[in-house]
Amino acid sequence: MAGAGTRVEEIDEAESRRLLEMHSFVGRVGFVSEGHVLVLPVNYLAENDEIFFCTRAGTKLSALRAGAPVAFEVDASRSLYHSGWSVVVTGSASEVTDPDALDRLRRGSLKSWAIPSSEHWVRISIETISGRRIPEI
Amino acid sequence: MAGAGTRVEEIDEAESRRLLEMHSFVGRVGFVSEGHVLVLPVNYLAENDEIFFCTRAGTKLSALRAGAPVAFEVDASRSLYHSGWSVVVTGSASEVTDPDALDRLRRGSLKSWAIPSSEHWVRISIETISGRRIPEI
Repeated sequence: MAGAGTRVEEIDEAESRRLLEMHSFVGRVGFVSEGHVLVLPVNYLAENDEIFFCTRAGTKLSALRAGAPVAFEVDASRSLYHSGWSVVVTGSASEVTDPDALDRLRRGSLKSWAIPSSEHWVRISIETISGRRIPEI
Repeated sequence: MAGAGTRVEEIDEAESRRLLEMHSFVGRVGFVSEGHVLVLPVNYLAENDEIFFCTRAGTKLSALRAGAPVAFEVDASRSLYHSGWSVVVTGSASEVTDPDALDRLRRGSLKSWAIPSSEHWVRISIETISGRRIPEI
């Protein structure tokens, strides 16, 4: 979106990763389910090149399996100033099945607001990441 | 996501529409572009069964044409209370080409934060809408 006729500025990759990892509690997962595009919010944890979130068995998100293409988005805005930033990721999703990784996630710091405890974790492997910022007026 | 083992409550359709129309400045559009799922934030206007946003020519969003399947999501959260709500829409997108509708949109109250003025408007016709809430702890 950056370019002439817009207030939007690009955020470089390092800063995009920092915003993804540090500055949001809620992200949105975009994916295709039974031929329909869906966007659903999740609480998430991002580190290194991966994003993790937990789901309940039987949900549409829990159906994300080996290599499913997904998008992930986080943003924050200050409506009074018509300003904000967003980070957009594309990648692939898979269920976390390794017992050590699962144990670490279950005992980790991410507590979903929606689910008291979760057996089902999904990993998004980040393939592209980019960010945009609209500075304050 | 509602059901046993979750704090999530359903929001009925009337309240979901009210939240979509009244309580958010930024929504996220999910769509498929050249075979990839993308999620991008937009400033939007919702009324009746339609959501409108403006884009610049040449962007991925501006490529949404007659009947492209899309998802749309808005949410708000209070991280201190691990609470929030979200409304999820599925529908189809098309470019607004009717001169009267375009004129009304250009002179209307939606001012994109990103784009000083816009010639290009997209309409999402809402096909399904649902909402979820996580009450305060």
